[in-house]
Amino acid sequence: MSVILHDLCGADPDRRFSPYCWRVRMALAHKGVAHEALPWRFTDKAAIADAGTDKVPVLRHAGRAIAESWTILEYLEDHWPGAPSLFGGEGGRALSRFVNTWSDAVMMTGIARLVVSDIPAHLAPADAEYFTRTREARFGRALPEVTASREREVEGFRRDLHPLRMVLRERPWLSGPTAGAADFIAFGPLQWARCVSAFPLLTPDDPVHAWRGRLLDAFGGLARAAPAEDLG
Amino acid sequence: MSVILHDLCGADPDRRFSPYCWRVRMALAHKGVAHEALPWRFTDKAAIADAGTDKVPVLRHAGRAIAESWTILEYLEDHWPGAPSLFGGEGGRALSRFVNTWSDAVMMTGIARLVVSDIPAHLAPADAEYFTRTREARFGRALPEVTASREREVEGFRRDLHPLRMVLRERPWLSGPTAGAADFIAFGPLQWARCVSAFPLLTPDDPVHAWRGRLLDAFGGLARAAPAEDLG
Repeated sequence: MSVILHDLCGADPDRRFSPYCWRVRMALAHKGVAHEALPWRFTDKAAIADAGTDKVPVLRHAGRAIAESWTILEYLEDHWPGAPSLFGGEGGRALSRFVNTWSDAVMMTGIARLVVSDIPAHLAPADAEYFTRTREARFGRALPEVTASREREVEGFRRDLHPLRMVLRERPWLSGPTAGAADFIAFGPLQWARCVSAFPLLTPDDPVHAWRGRLLDAFGGLARAAPAEDLG
Repeated sequence: MSVILHDLCGADPDRRFSPYCWRVRMALAHKGVAHEALPWRFTDKAAIADAGTDKVPVLRHAGRAIAESWTILEYLEDHWPGAPSLFGGEGGRALSRFVNTWSDAVMMTGIARLVVSDIPAHLAPADAEYFTRTREARFGRALPEVTASREREVEGFRRDLHPLRMVLRERPWLSGPTAGAADFIAFGPLQWARCVSAFPLLTPDDPVHAWRGRLLDAFGGLARAAPAEDLG
């Protein structure tokens, strides 16, 4: 197959949980690009070193190795111009970048504080040691301490989703009449959480919850079929 | 003149400070639509009642009266299709709506808590009474109490601008190669503050500050020429 994605996995090679890889997997499905998603672990640095990075996603196509999810989305849009658009034009491309910085700053950061302690149990031993050590250094405390108050702190996270919720009260997708890159960018962090943690981030009556459900169902239920913990 | 904008003003009819009206004024300038911006005060409800609203902006064109800034931006895009685009295509239009909900939830709400007590001094007496009464009801306390801790609370507001800042570190405009609706939507609340309060919302080394400066200079310095308090 001519397109390969290096895709983060847990001890179970079918547990694919990277939010950044999910952005790309949804985009590949949207574009209808046939590909192989190879399992990759945090400690497999050598397998992607030629892409000049130590993190996935890395996409391989036509002799190139492309790192970083946003760069990959732009690459897909530019190299498969005849397939359904990810951005819906140049204005959509520019503003999808804002959705990306918003999703990283608000969703990734917020969700990490709510689920990070649930992740090591899903990892192969060497990855669990690597993950725990690097994340404890980042947070400055043990991972169970980071999430100890999550029952209370999830309220703040839900409030921070208000701009997304306001749009989804009016319309089914963020990107336009159909789902697109901005939807996949915001979905990635929620799918990350779903794959590693049973902690309920969203209430069932939240328009964000319903939108997540539509994205889980998209592309023949690609994301819903993934091994996961939060089945709500 | 065939296009009229009802535009909120203070006791001085030249002090135009509505964040929502500024979104529309910048969009009218971007489109090059000749218009008259008529001064309107909070208590002039009768002047806009035919638009089915009690708030400005209201745009009059071709016998129609159109309320609500987002609706007006879409109207301008659709009725002046040959003029420079506000959205850069359908994807940009959809995601500008997300920027609008983000700007309202994060910027408007955040800035209101930092500057609201500075507004009544700029208003005509009947408006000052109306504004103080309605806003104190909204906040549940006296306006000087709302802003009493602003020297400290501005730090949180600046942190909340991080998604915007991340984009503006990479590129000059939010909307694409040129400024567009998303820029004007995020600029409106900052221009609101600038017109009524000397309190510095942004530090001079912030990419958001530099971007605000570019928008103040746009269209021959339209926004910079407006009577204002924060001249930084």
